[in-house]
Amino acid sequence: MIQFNCDYMVGAHPAILEKMTETNMEKTEGYGFDPYCDSARAKIREVCGCPDAEVEFLMGGTQTNATVIKAMLRPYEGVIAASTGHVNCHEAGAIEMGGHKVLALPEQNGKITAEQIRECCWLYYKDASRDHMVMPGMVYISHPTEYGTLYTLKEMEDIRRMCDEYHLSLFVDGARLGYALGSAENEVTLKDLARIADVFYIGGTKCGALFGEAVVVPDPERIPHFFMIMKQQGAVLAKGRLLGIQFDTLFTGGLYEEICGNGVRQAMKIKAALKEKNYRFYNDSPTNQQFVIISDEQEKELSEWLAVEMMDTYDENHIIMRICTSWATSDEETEELIRRL
Amino acid sequence: MIQFNCDYMVGAHPAILEKMTETNMEKTEGYGFDPYCDSARAKIREVCGCPDAEVEFLMGGTQTNATVIKAMLRPYEGVIAASTGHVNCHEAGAIEMGGHKVLALPEQNGKITAEQIRECCWLYYKDASRDHMVMPGMVYISHPTEYGTLYTLKEMEDIRRMCDEYHLSLFVDGARLGYALGSAENEVTLKDLARIADVFYIGGTKCGALFGEAVVVPDPERIPHFFMIMKQQGAVLAKGRLLGIQFDTLFTGGLYEEICGNGVRQAMKIKAALKEKNYRFYNDSPTNQQFVIISDEQEKELSEWLAVEMMDTYDENHIIMRICTSWATSDEETEELIRRL
Amino acid sequence: MIQFNCDYMVGAHPAILEKMTETNMEKTEGYGFDPYCDSARAKIREVCGCPDAEVEFLMGGTQTNATVIKAMLRPYEGVIAASTGHVNCHEAGAIEMGGHKVLALPEQNGKITAEQIRECCWLYYKDASRDHMVMPGMVYISHPTEYGTLYTLKEMEDIRRMCDEYHLSLFVDGARLGYALGSAENEVTLKDLARIADVFYIGGTKCGALFGEAVVVPDPERIPHFFMIMKQQGAVLAKGRLLGIQFDTLFTGGLYEEICGNGVRQAMKIKAALKEKNYRFYNDSPTNQQFVIISDEQEKELSEWLAVEMMDTYDENHIIMRICTSWATSDEETEELIRRL
Amino acid sequence: MIQFNCDYMVGAHPAILEKMTETNMEKTEGYGFDPYCDSARAKIREVCGCPDAEVEFLMGGTQTNATVIKAMLRPYEGVIAASTGHVNCHEAGAIEMGGHKVLALPEQNGKITAEQIRECCWLYYKDASRDHMVMPGMVYISHPTEYGTLYTLKEMEDIRRMCDEYHLSLFVDGARLGYALGSAENEVTLKDLARIADVFYIGGTKCGALFGEAVVVPDPERIPHFFMIMKQQGAVLAKGRLLGIQFDTLFTGGLYEEICGNGVRQAMKIKAALKEKNYRFYNDSPTNQQFVIISDEQEKELSEWLAVEMMDTYDENHIIMRICTSWATSDEETEELIRRL
Repeated sequence: MIQFNCDYMVGAHPAILEKMTETNMEKTEGYGFDPYCDSARAKIREVCGCPDAEVEFLMGGTQTNATVIKAMLRPYEGVIAASTGHVNCHEAGAIEMGGHKVLALPEQNGKITAEQIRECCWLYYKDASRDHMVMPGMVYISHPTEYGTLYTLKEMEDIRRMCDEYHLSLFVDGARLGYALGSAENEVTLKDLARIADVFYIGGTKCGALFGEAVVVPDPERIPHFFMIMKQQGAVLAKGRLLGIQFDTLFTGGLYEEICGNGVRQAMKIKAALKEKNYRFYNDSPTNQQFVIISDEQEKELSEWLAVEMMDTYDENHIIMRICTSWATSDEETEELIRRL
Repeated sequence: MIQFNCDYMVGAHPAILEKMTETNMEKTEGYGFDPYCDSARAKIREVCGCPDAEVEFLMGGTQTNATVIKAMLRPYEGVIAASTGHVNCHEAGAIEMGGHKVLALPEQNGKITAEQIRECCWLYYKDASRDHMVMPGMVYISHPTEYGTLYTLKEMEDIRRMCDEYHLSLFVDGARLGYALGSAENEVTLKDLARIADVFYIGGTKCGALFGEAVVVPDPERIPHFFMIMKQQGAVLAKGRLLGIQFDTLFTGGLYEEICGNGVRQAMKIKAALKEKNYRFYNDSPTNQQFVIISDEQEKELSEWLAVEMMDTYDENHIIMRICTSWATSDEETEELIRRL
Repeated sequence: MIQFNCDYMVGAHPAILEKMTETNMEKTEGYGFDPYCDSARAKIREVCGCPDAEVEFLMGGTQTNATVIKAMLRPYEGVIAASTGHVNCHEAGAIEMGGHKVLALPEQNGKITAEQIRECCWLYYKDASRDHMVMPGMVYISHPTEYGTLYTLKEMEDIRRMCDEYHLSLFVDGARLGYALGSAENEVTLKDLARIADVFYIGGTKCGALFGEAVVVPDPERIPHFFMIMKQQGAVLAKGRLLGIQFDTLFTGGLYEEICGNGVRQAMKIKAALKEKNYRFYNDSPTNQQFVIISDEQEKELSEWLAVEMMDTYDENHIIMRICTSWATSDEETEELIRRL
Repeated sequence: MIQFNCDYMVGAHPAILEKMTETNMEKTEGYGFDPYCDSARAKIREVCGCPDAEVEFLMGGTQTNATVIKAMLRPYEGVIAASTGHVNCHEAGAIEMGGHKVLALPEQNGKITAEQIRECCWLYYKDASRDHMVMPGMVYISHPTEYGTLYTLKEMEDIRRMCDEYHLSLFVDGARLGYALGSAENEVTLKDLARIADVFYIGGTKCGALFGEAVVVPDPERIPHFFMIMKQQGAVLAKGRLLGIQFDTLFTGGLYEEICGNGVRQAMKIKAALKEKNYRFYNDSPTNQQFVIISDEQEKELSEWLAVEMMDTYDENHIIMRICTSWATSDEETEELIRRL
């Protein structure tokens, strides 16, 4: 079985496990107040160009999304997201459990536009009974999106302007951020994110770590007492240094971008080869997720030797298949896939 | 200004105020444990043909919806509703505040179908990652709908069958139930509701009472300790007899159906007259809400002497206007409206 | 059966029902945007000496407490209250359902002191692991308390100072406020409350209304979008004018204080008579609730002709009985009670 | 600085890191559906003697407590716990955030008794207004407790009987369970726990793992769809095998009991030596936490070279100091501590 089903199937980059093993018997304070977290924080602030940022480490994506949204919204506010956004469809209702409605907008390849946000807010504010409705309080976007696509710098800046106009926070889910940073087509740097977003996170789980997401709040006053809300959500790791060590390693010598760059490179090879073989693509993704339209018969055949995720029905006889590479995908794996497809 | 903007603009049917005044200085136990509530409960059980039903009185629609849904769903469950359903758009996020996602489906004149429910559940159960999604746990429909329409008996029974198939509760919002019962086209009796729904309510606020909704749970074991959840939601009235007196009055001598029947009659007169004058209708509503398509210029003119609700944009130059009668609308008011339109 | 069990057994002051009847068929806008609410608001602002206050009308005590606390606290904050406070023991967990811990302090006759608040906060802030604990965010007191007692002006001002020192909001539950204002011993005026508290409410349900509590927020910026949180909690009455009419009536010509003064006067007569008859009192209450220590045998006898509430066990053979008068208690009732006791 | 401040200062037992490193580049399914989790589950079921149990792996104690309580309680229920219980004081209000009140009882050395539970329930059920109060729905105890003490088998069985009598679930927090199992005085085996508790967990974080708690539900029907509630709470680890590998290692060849036994042995040596030196102990703890009463002057001196936790004030001039060993404490560390004290 060849496995291209997701980007969290293997462990961590070996340098992380080495560092964990090397420091294993050291005694450090818990809950993120250790030198490894401090060092990771410093490096992340540096690379994001925001020396005053609060940087907190959480354990996974759903946990991070639920905690950040709970922390930033007032009870009567909801969060605008693409209908395909992770917060809208793959978190078992965690956002609603926290008390907030997801205001889902139709997506284009996983993205939403500033114009859609404007219309959503305009409809809300022009409605005489808006006080009986959910007030838009935040925009949630993911970069890359769940469909592998990237926001251009202009698109993201336009969204920011709309957020300013309608007093919305902007939260960028970077669970796969490494595969944006490692993509030739990406225009949005970490410094841009720190300038544009109120809060964003740098994904570890899918990008070389065992687990972990680094939340960056460029202006810490935007989320007072974030740690307490994390604790209340069960999102504080006792041996916090495990997160510190991982992000410190990933942000030393550019490792994060480098290894995720490999994931994108493998995806681009697959894309080029499949295009040559006349496969149809659902969209034009410049990152580690590739979406291919296959017939139901093809699906049956492939399922015997290829493990991938089937995303959605395309039409009566076709289906959208996702091929997902990762930082750890080897040339050999990629070549074997190409050969057999 | 002629006012047809909603069905909760005046007080209560005079018989209610008389009874309240007459009993005003009586001393009774609080929280619904008084003889008036008991009497109202008995009459409602009788007319619904469910002698074992639990009947509880709450104060308003949003409160009732939020309390019932909170009481019936498990944390991981969501509620299926029409996108125009009150729980989805006019409760300021009360359902989400209670921890549950509203699984909104496209509506046809405010209604959803058994087929849509089947598809929604089928998509859920066939999805390999359904445990990361919100499980459909309940269907919420309103009768009449927010667009004045009625479910046929067959439509509602089909929905029931689908609920059985997918282990969903069925909750019928009857905030305007009187205007269904008072409509010639209605096929669904109170006895039908008691047989078909797991829980439903008989609206008072819009149907002749000062305030109040009577929740009927034909099989009380479906919601154990409902009173405690009401109390926790702030939905228990200290002087509970005020609710008992109102529903006792409304369900004595068929008053409820009779007065709401007047609301429908007035609406039918308006409908007939406007059709004759070649007004276009957005849909064919057999109840007290009528939806008329008017041009933006008409809207401007009308707004000078007619208070109505503008529901939505119809197209670039047209808008949907709602004319809403009530149990209290008089022949004179209706005739004046017809004359001036 | 002579009934002194609580202060919400009868309806409303007759003037209220008259006004409701008189205005019954008027058409007004819903949700509190009507002239009666406006008039009531103006009168309340006037008598409280806070012309800029936001005044909102809710339906009952538990609902008001839960809504105000939800509106004012951040997720990580808890509310300090006496262990006997209504929010701690008689709201079926409504505060916790809203996400907040009640930080219960031992009470003295239903009261807590500034010193206790200081100690509670001091213990919190000196604790190195305070970020793993619930941060005190609000002080909740009731005036009169659940044990009929009153805060002196100095006591309340001391609590305010402590709130300032530790950045706590002060919320005064005035469900029985009329019986404070109507007591000769009360030192805290409505103007004092408006100056001292961040938010308080003027109880209607127990003080002459059919139902309703008037929340006063002297500085509205303390609770932005309060209406939306009310709506989300199901705490907005569609025919809001019913609340406006009631408070407008109660705050016309000093009716509120006058009728509640009667309740206190009857209680004082009972107290004096019982003292003469050598009954032991649990505490020295200057308001409409009197707490008498009786033996278990006495309890048995009394239960045959007197309906009262048994509050708590006093010792092995004694029990604390509450005699509760109200605005509606007549001289005859009081005299009969005294005669038979 | 000598460090005895807590039991989560170092990483994991080396065998765990070796196994993680060895398996690092394997590809496995996520979310706990991998062979390592399956193997760990099988071993835990075996050692607990409950072949049908559901075993789920979560990341930390607060998260586990909040998730289990949310999963088991109905909205109107609260959880009985010792006032010193972790859920009552060190989880930043996570239980209340989930909607439930902690019904705190006075503790004796961190323990509560069946009699206390009986009284709490009896007071609730005899109260005529119990439907306005929080219904006891669960008992939470920790074994060992936060004060290092252990329940005897009889004490725990008595609690179980009381739970049966009052329809309460019994939840045992085993964050430090290894130090019970490794204590000579412990009477409660894993098989006993599986027989007595409705749900309990085997702590990893403090007992040799990097992180992780293994929740055991002997009768899985007690918590339907537990996984979904975990997901909703952000308590599912994407690379779930990391938890599987850890518990599989700890439950191979009795490693868990063996290494935690070392922690207890070191604590017993310290206890014996300090008793000889006439130190006063706050209680008689048979596990890895020892509580010593020291004067304020001693505290000042010690703080220069010894890192420990100060638990509470003992009296005006004394304080309770906790010395905490762990599975990783070496003979050398213990001897140095004894020598210098």
